[in-house]
Amino acid sequence: MDTKKSIQKYLEELSSNLPTPGGGNVAALCGALSASLGTMVCNLTIGKKKYLDVESEMNELKQKLHPYIDKFISLAKSDNEAFERVMDAFKLPKETDEQKKLRSEAIEKSTFEAAYVPAEVIKNCREVITLLEPVSKKGNQNSLSDAGVAIAVIAAASEGAFLNVLINYSSLNEKQKASQLLIQSENLNNEVKEEAHFLLSEITAKIRGN
Amino acid sequence: MDTKKSIQKYLEELSSNLPTPGGGNVAALCGALSASLGTMVCNLTIGKKKYLDVESEMNELKQKLHPYIDKFISLAKSDNEAFERVMDAFKLPKETDEQKKLRSEAIEKSTFEAAYVPAEVIKNCREVITLLEPVSKKGNQNSLSDAGVAIAVIAAASEGAFLNVLINYSSLNEKQKASQLLIQSENLNNEVKEEAHFLLSEITAKIRGN
Repeated sequence: MDTKKSIQKYLEELSSNLPTPGGGNVAALCGALSASLGTMVCNLTIGKKKYLDVESEMNELKQKLHPYIDKFISLAKSDNEAFERVMDAFKLPKETDEQKKLRSEAIEKSTFEAAYVPAEVIKNCREVITLLEPVSKKGNQNSLSDAGVAIAVIAAASEGAFLNVLINYSSLNEKQKASQLLIQSENLNNEVKEEAHFLLSEITAKIRGN
Repeated sequence: MDTKKSIQKYLEELSSNLPTPGGGNVAALCGALSASLGTMVCNLTIGKKKYLDVESEMNELKQKLHPYIDKFISLAKSDNEAFERVMDAFKLPKETDEQKKLRSEAIEKSTFEAAYVPAEVIKNCREVITLLEPVSKKGNQNSLSDAGVAIAVIAAASEGAFLNVLINYSSLNEKQKASQLLIQSENLNNEVKEEAHFLLSEITAKIRGN
């Protein structure tokens, strides 16, 4: 994934029948959007008189959140690469028994790797939502809706990534090898969903009370 | 919002303390990502022998879905403009009573408009999820996870937009004028959330059954 690409071009390529980008890439990109938005709320808090008592905490949260933008972009790239390797494996010759065996092994290996990337996305989403909680609670309350958008978007990133772990897991022949990855991903995704649901209810109630 | 801007640049500006883009813009952009991904699933279905019986329906769904990419991008631009007008209103002079009155009226008017834009985003999300349902059910089942990501992301777009309707509504002096907009937005957002929850459960079960 080339982030020098324009948004317009990305949306065009996404909508087309090109092999990449696809849903896994969008999930990772949503992770980057969320981390970026969370960083923005920190930046809109730091330096404000009203928030002097949380300034050092916001600086710390910003230092922690900001690197996730690049982490998610890197995972978005890995997702494209992993998917391309699966496609390449499917294109291998399958005339002789030996070729069939090699092709089958290559499909299996690349599919496992394609499950691993979104599993990493989910792990990062879990970490980011933990940082978004204090950002939403203690950050600039004029930006409470922005923190809320970041939370809604990280939950979508996690859920989208989980579907990608699942579809790759489902097409593995030897599921045993990936079952731990699936269970871990499902647990983390459920935690992200629950946390997002809880935080969004709180934020909505807080804005209504304004 | 200039879609010729690179993804990198967008993420940088988003994370900064610049007035725009903000959460409302991200919500609308997520709408565009979802519509684009839905269009992709149509494109990955059309022309496939296995899906000949749904080819005309997929063509129709594609024709309907594709324009939402531009609609959401246009709303993302409107969101930036609306927010900038609110900021401008706050900068108006407030020395004389007349100035205070004019400033207050300008803030009220621009805030109402800033609530209207995300309300439009929610309306479009409601329409898009209705189109994503048959795309996920009848489209290329190898892309079922992609349809799922589109659904998760449209729900985040809608929820994010709702928080933006709400925060603008909450800061209005005359809430009466916008109460219909709020109720309508809340109802539509709830519909999107319920539909997304239902469809994602179905998709997850379907992939598990593969």
